[in-house]
Formats: sequence, C-alpha cells, structure tokens
Amino acid sequence: MNNLCTVRIGSITRAGRVEGDDIVVLDAADVGAVLRTGKQEETGNAIPRVTADLAPLITAPDKVICVGQNYLDHIREMGNEPPAAPTYFAKFSNSLIGARDDMILPPVDVSTHVDWEAELAIVIGSPVRHASSAEALAAVAGYTVLNDGSVRDYQRRTKQFLAGKMFEGLTPVGPVLVPATELGDGSGLTIRSSVDGVVKQDSNTDQLCFTVVDIVKDLSAITTLMPGDIIATGTPGGVGAARTPPEWLGDGSIVRCEIEGIGAVENRCVLPG
Amino acid sequence: MNNLCTVRIGSITRAGRVEGDDIVVLDAADVGAVLRTGKQEETGNAIPRVTADLAPLITAPDKVICVGQNYLDHIREMGNEPPAAPTYFAKFSNSLIGARDDMILPPVDVSTHVDWEAELAIVIGSPVRHASSAEALAAVAGYTVLNDGSVRDYQRRTKQFLAGKMFEGLTPVGPVLVPATELGDGSGLTIRSSVDGVVKQDSNTDQLCFTVVDIVKDLSAITTLMPGDIIATGTPGGVGAARTPPEWLGDGSIVRCEIEGIGAVENRCVLPG
Repeated sequence: MNNLCTVRIGSITRAGRVEGDDIVVLDAADVGAVLRTGKQEETGNAIPRVTADLAPLITAPDKVICVGQNYLDHIREMGNEPPAAPTYFAKFSNSLIGARDDMILPPVDVSTHVDWEAELAIVIGSPVRHASSAEALAAVAGYTVLNDGSVRDYQRRTKQFLAGKMFEGLTPVGPVLVPATELGDGSGLTIRSSVDGVVKQDSNTDQLCFTVVDIVKDLSAITTLMPGDIIATGTPGGVGAARTPPEWLGDGSIVRCEIEGIGAVENRCVLPG
Repeated sequence: MNNLCTVRIGSITRAGRVEGDDIVVLDAADVGAVLRTGKQEETGNAIPRVTADLAPLITAPDKVICVGQNYLDHIREMGNEPPAAPTYFAKFSNSLIGARDDMILPPVDVSTHVDWEAELAIVIGSPVRHASSAEALAAVAGYTVLNDGSVRDYQRRTKQFLAGKMFEGLTPVGPVLVPATELGDGSGLTIRSSVDGVVKQDSNTDQLCFTVVDIVKDLSAITTLMPGDIIATGTPGGVGAARTPPEWLGDGSIVRCEIEGIGAVENRCVLPG
C-alpha cells in the first residue's frame, strides 16, 4: 500500500497517493474521506511531491485525542512515576496545520511559552468499539507525525491541560499516512525533534508506556473511534518546558519533528502580523 | 426571535423553528447549519412539538468545551477559593444525544459510576477571535441545557478529566436554542436537576464564577470559536459523586436537567442490550 497525503489545490483540498516523487491526486477531499469510503479514484492529475502544499493530513477529524505522560524518559524528566492508566486530553480540528505550514504563535500579550512535542500519531481506519487487542490493531489505518504544540502557561493555569493544547494552528500533522501494513504496531521507530537544527528530543517508540494497541483498546471502551480520528501517543523527553533554563519557540524558530519510516513536519514559527 | 431545535425525520435530521405547539421544519440539517448560513428557509412541513424526535441540538459541533468548577455556591461549600482562570475540558460530538433520548450506560464491567451535571450551555452564532466583552456577547447565538454525563472513575483515574467526560451517548443537549435576544448574558436563571423526581441540584446562573462573557472572551484568545460550537458553563452543587454516600445513575434512572426560560432534557438511563 502507498502512503497517502492531503494537498491544497487552490481553495480546496484533495487526498493524494504518493508514487515516487509524485502525488497522484485522488477524487476525495482528504485522507479522512479516503478512509471513510475506502475509495482511491484518481482525478488524472499528479503534482510533484517537493512543491506540494500539504494540508493537515485529516482536515476535520471527528476526534483528536492526545496521550500525555507516555514515554518513560519524558515521565522521568517531568518528575513523575509511570501511570496506571493512559492520560488523555483533546485538541480540536482548527488546532491542526499542514506539515510545512507556519505555526502562528499567540500574540505576545497572550503567551510567549510555546513548546514542541514530537509524537507518533495513530490514524483510525475503521469504526471500533469495545475492541480486543487484535481488533484494536485492525482498526488502525496507519501512522503519521504530529507536533503537539503546547502553550505551557495556559496548560498549567488550571489542572486541566486543554486550554494550553487547543491553541489554533499550533499542531502540525503529516506529511503522510504510512499504512499499518508497513509499520505494524508502530513500535521500534526512532522519534526526534529539533529546533533551528539543534536536536531536542531523540527517543524511540519502544519507550511508549501504553502501546498503540493498549491505547486504541482502552479508548474503544469509552467511545466509538471513527475513520480519520487522530490519536497522538505522547512525547519523549526533551521538551522546552523541562529544560534548564526553559526554552520556548519564538518568531522565526524552525521546529522539526521526524519519525523513522514516516518523515517529518517542519514548521516556521511566526508572530501574527 | 423564535426558539430553534433539531429533529429526526426518518433517517435524516432537520432544523426546526418552534411556533407555539408546532415545529416548523426548516431546509437545514440542524441548528448548526442555520447558524452557519443564517437562513431559515421552510420546507412547508410542521410537526407537533410534543411528539417530535429531538436530535442533539447541534449534531456535529466543531467543538464541545466544558467549564469545570464554576459555581460559587459549590466552590464555597467544598471549602475552596474561586479559581483565577476557567478550567476547560472537552467532549466530542458522539457524546451528544437528544433531549429525550436514552442515555446508554457503559457496560457494568467498564463502569457503574455514572453521574449527572446540569449545565447552562452557550451556543456560538458567529466566528469570534480575540474578543472584547461586547464582541464576546455578540457572538453568542443563545443558550440550551446540557447534562454533562460523567463517568467518575474514568474521570479520576488520571489527573485529566477527558476519559470520564467523552463517553459515547451520555451527554443530552437541548431541547431548544433560546436566542440571546431573549436571555441576554444568561445570568439570573434557575438551574435544577432531579433523578427519579427527587431534586438533586437547585441553583441559579447568578452563581457562575466566570460568566458567559468571561468564558467566550477567554476562549477567543486561544482559538476561533465557530457557529455551532457548544460551551457548557459548569454545574452547581448536588452531583452524585459529592453525596454521602455517593449516588450513581443506574438502569432505568430518569434524570432531568432544567433551566428557567429554556426547558428540560429528560433522559432514561439504560444498560446496553
């Protein structure tokens, strides 16, 4: 199976199938539509991969669920013990941006504490509820990269993270969906982030406390996961907030999050004009 | 302006305008579509209000944001100080059910700790970002009732509430949208809940720590609120988890949440078949 992506063409978006250096444009609005219908009808057009304007992989997912405190190295740097159950918080679809889009920072009078979090993200391929482990894995369409852009002062002003996690346009996701037929259960993949070329996070998805299967199975006891739902599996150690002194993304920062076998999202941070 | 609702007609949903005892069926899929387009074109059909099959007021909101710890009476009775910032958590659209739908309880091996939370819910009418107080109020289309059905053991198994708040089909919302032209800033409204006819919560929206305007203004610094977005403003004292001994909703429980000037959601709890 080929990798899939979502591209902007003028004022619309289209799903695309990656074939070598080209993206074959499909007659579907985004990868979410491909997953819901199972169809990959071609439009007859192709565009070069290198210049494609990548939209968020799923433009309007029904759910974006993030797992917190899920890398053993990150748990330790935040001073915590491995948890007994996965920690979940949410984002909304307007948090998402494309793999090469600018991250629009909050105005400085709102916050200057913007941080990065490289994450392996699960994309659901078929509806799943009360799943066994085998059913959980079978419901995974594949994987992508997500930078869980986090505004730390808003995240920490109350005990609930959502305020700092739902900022508009701070969560790059992409560049492609790599099918689970290629990456299996998502384990054993190098995951890295860098800011302005300096490596900040460098770990492996083997460090996941709750695995992809654990997470999908657990969530499916709570709700029906649907095609196009995105589940970010947590971030390894090395985020800005945990550094001494803390480091924040600023105007012009280039932040890159990369996972072995998938690719990278690389985004420039800009202050609103 | 008339109240609006969303009704199921066969396998589809339609927005409706309440006129006396009737619902005039509109050519729009739900109240969200009416808010996005501003159009109330009639289909020529009307149905009696009393027998209407009410769908969730907004069937697929872009965002469902809930405010926690927001009633002063409840904060003070628990011996706490009013918080400095609103506490936010999320739900997803498949949590929502209609005003008279059954609440499908989790299987007993998942949880038996299902609780009620009567809440005044804001429905956004126009896009709003970085709002002043006046702009915040102007972006409010109106108000409805929401029962923030909460699975307490899941809510409390980690520090993040989402797991206990996103259960499928446990959040009734309706029965109607009452325009802000009728209810202003939503203050001064009696809010009550009962279980099997016994009053459990009885307060007034004057007790809101963060007002409707405070909340919309604050959220608009984080993200663009969009037409059809639902923001539940928190619940007063009297929930099941805070009782001695704790009380939970069980198979056959009838839970009713009512707000002055809006109406009630009344739902029977049933175990899955």
